[in-house]
Amino acid sequence: MSTNAKIVFDDLVKIRQQKPLIHNITNYVVMNNTANALLSLGASPVMAHAVEEVADMVKIASALAVNIGTLSKHWIEGMKIAMRAAADRGIPIVFDPVGVGATPYRNETCEELLSLVKPTIIRGNPSEIMALVKLNSASTRGVDSTESSDAALESALKLARYHNCVVSVSGEIDLIVEGEKVVRVANGDAMMPLVTGLGCTATCITAAFAAVNDSPFIAAINAMVIMGLAGEIAAEEALGPGSLQVDFIDSLYTMEREQIEMRIKVLD
Amino acid sequence: MSTNAKIVFDDLVKIRQQKPLIHNITNYVVMNNTANALLSLGASPVMAHAVEEVADMVKIASALAVNIGTLSKHWIEGMKIAMRAAADRGIPIVFDPVGVGATPYRNETCEELLSLVKPTIIRGNPSEIMALVKLNSASTRGVDSTESSDAALESALKLARYHNCVVSVSGEIDLIVEGEKVVRVANGDAMMPLVTGLGCTATCITAAFAAVNDSPFIAAINAMVIMGLAGEIAAEEALGPGSLQVDFIDSLYTMEREQIEMRIKVLD
Amino acid sequence: MSTNAKIVFDDLVKIRQQKPLIHNITNYVVMNNTANALLSLGASPVMAHAVEEVADMVKIASALAVNIGTLSKHWIEGMKIAMRAAADRGIPIVFDPVGVGATPYRNETCEELLSLVKPTIIRGNPSEIMALVKLNSASTRGVDSTESSDAALESALKLARYHNCVVSVSGEIDLIVEGEKVVRVANGDAMMPLVTGLGCTATCITAAFAAVNDSPFIAAINAMVIMGLAGEIAAEEALGPGSLQVDFIDSLYTMEREQIEMRIKVLD
Repeated sequence: MSTNAKIVFDDLVKIRQQKPLIHNITNYVVMNNTANALLSLGASPVMAHAVEEVADMVKIASALAVNIGTLSKHWIEGMKIAMRAAADRGIPIVFDPVGVGATPYRNETCEELLSLVKPTIIRGNPSEIMALVKLNSASTRGVDSTESSDAALESALKLARYHNCVVSVSGEIDLIVEGEKVVRVANGDAMMPLVTGLGCTATCITAAFAAVNDSPFIAAINAMVIMGLAGEIAAEEALGPGSLQVDFIDSLYTMEREQIEMRIKVLD
Repeated sequence: MSTNAKIVFDDLVKIRQQKPLIHNITNYVVMNNTANALLSLGASPVMAHAVEEVADMVKIASALAVNIGTLSKHWIEGMKIAMRAAADRGIPIVFDPVGVGATPYRNETCEELLSLVKPTIIRGNPSEIMALVKLNSASTRGVDSTESSDAALESALKLARYHNCVVSVSGEIDLIVEGEKVVRVANGDAMMPLVTGLGCTATCITAAFAAVNDSPFIAAINAMVIMGLAGEIAAEEALGPGSLQVDFIDSLYTMEREQIEMRIKVLD
Repeated sequence: MSTNAKIVFDDLVKIRQQKPLIHNITNYVVMNNTANALLSLGASPVMAHAVEEVADMVKIASALAVNIGTLSKHWIEGMKIAMRAAADRGIPIVFDPVGVGATPYRNETCEELLSLVKPTIIRGNPSEIMALVKLNSASTRGVDSTESSDAALESALKLARYHNCVVSVSGEIDLIVEGEKVVRVANGDAMMPLVTGLGCTATCITAAFAAVNDSPFIAAINAMVIMGLAGEIAAEEALGPGSLQVDFIDSLYTMEREQIEMRIKVLD
């Protein structure tokens, strides 16, 4: 068994106690929400992207989250320096290939970043994970429509082998893959995709769990469990995506062991 | 009659079913809220500004919204490329001249963008619409204080003629102008201007309605009806601008035909 | 006595009536919240950072708030021009050295900006205020862990003397220092640091109060009183940091004289 309520909660307690500094180079749309999610989880967020300082910021961080959502030239330069510095220090790198497949620029950026430094965990939605695999097999570049879990699973396994990393695919049922191992997390709520940036939030929460657990595989699973639980608890009271976002942050903050024990749905 | 509850609701259903991709080049302040508003409305938002990819993103989008709120050199270059690409493809372009009149840089940027590509719809507040007209008549550039609706109406009519486009002016009573046609929308709530970026949200919602209706005039009216309705429904429960923002997003998501029928105030 | 409920409320009324334009050059993470906080307070926010327009924007603003949270080269250039223009016009400048001490780039940027223009008020957390003082005494540059109030007080006094400005230190008990004068504000709630950017919000609210009161010292105190009150009123209903942020904005909007009178805790 990969994880259970006790392991998830113990790691959550570690985050709350150690308050790991998570260095985020992420997109403009979600920065506020990801910072608030990390704070409510118990971690300490920092956002910094300038080439002049990212390496220094990585030096004091416990994990690095890189997200290409609103990419541009100078930001990509910052991502490269930060990823190299994080690899040198051996801290976890979580990479989120937002919108890869939508434009050649995103494809090229992903190729460049992934050829430079192997991330510890790649986290994306099914379309993004499938688009990343296509880059490696030199097939058509385009935008993938929403894809089935089965298609995403095959891609996730390929991607995990190719980059020798953990791959975490969010969806109605999340898939977390390492080598040949596949774990499914069935927590969450159907309204979650209507809140912008919850995927990006999953990425930074994954970084926080990776900062306190030596197994990136377990960390990625635990993060998706907490994401899903916070989302489904929030959805019970939320009237729509606006209040879901607010309640989600509150739920991260108030998450108790009993809630995890009663609700966790991890399928090994 | 320009529109009615049935037409508004039918277009809302089209948005919910077709989930048009709306490409936004907008300001840092509002990105999160505009993305969430589009998602709650039923559309699919994408934010991308880099010169390297905006033309490719426009290729897969159903409408383009351009907003100069926090403008800078590289972003303006991205706006130009995106607007040209959108004009080439014939998808609707909604332009929001945030703060025009406040600085020469904003005035020059608006002149440059509007001389390059004719937008489908210009959407702004009364001061911005009046400042835009002044650019064309080479009169003083400055900051306009809040102006009367009458003054804004004259400016909106001039601007619509000059650029041969629809002009949508938000205010206590919204004005939507095309050629000599003028429609007023009297929905909304007085607290709405105290939530930052609801004007910018109106712009992207206008783009979403323009993506599903061939008449930019009807689309602009329908968008202001939905904005106003979501605002006034939200205001009934909101305790202040903080909860108004949250409830506004929820109201977009839960908007029903009956609410539109009971509340719509369109004055032809 | 430095201030009292009457003075705080009178200045709040001035803000609500005069709606001073506050020019913010701040970080991507907090822009939305700071704009909303200023609007709910009664002020009028504008965010602009481009070198091409900041001087023009300063010309129509009543105060300037500069925050280095997500600094980069072009933004620093904009900060310099804006600070010089604000000093020339004699409008208040509130400077927030976010994360100074964390990287050499932040240290050098603070040194450069502070040597260029004397801010009216420096507002930061204890670690930042202590890091700023270390810059001046050429001691080790690094990240300060959370420091005691006593240590921060000594640093605040030094910094206030060195730059001949007001220093405002947020914490469980806020310290506001001018010359040898020290005032403590004991309002606030322990959950406030878990909402990202409330420090940055304190900075822009300080700028708003400085726009309506000729004494930067009184303005800085009044701002921290209103921040603390809005936070503690919000915390009474909030279920976590998500709802605290929303309720905080609402509380700024609904703040009444009686609430200030009953709750104010200013220790001269």
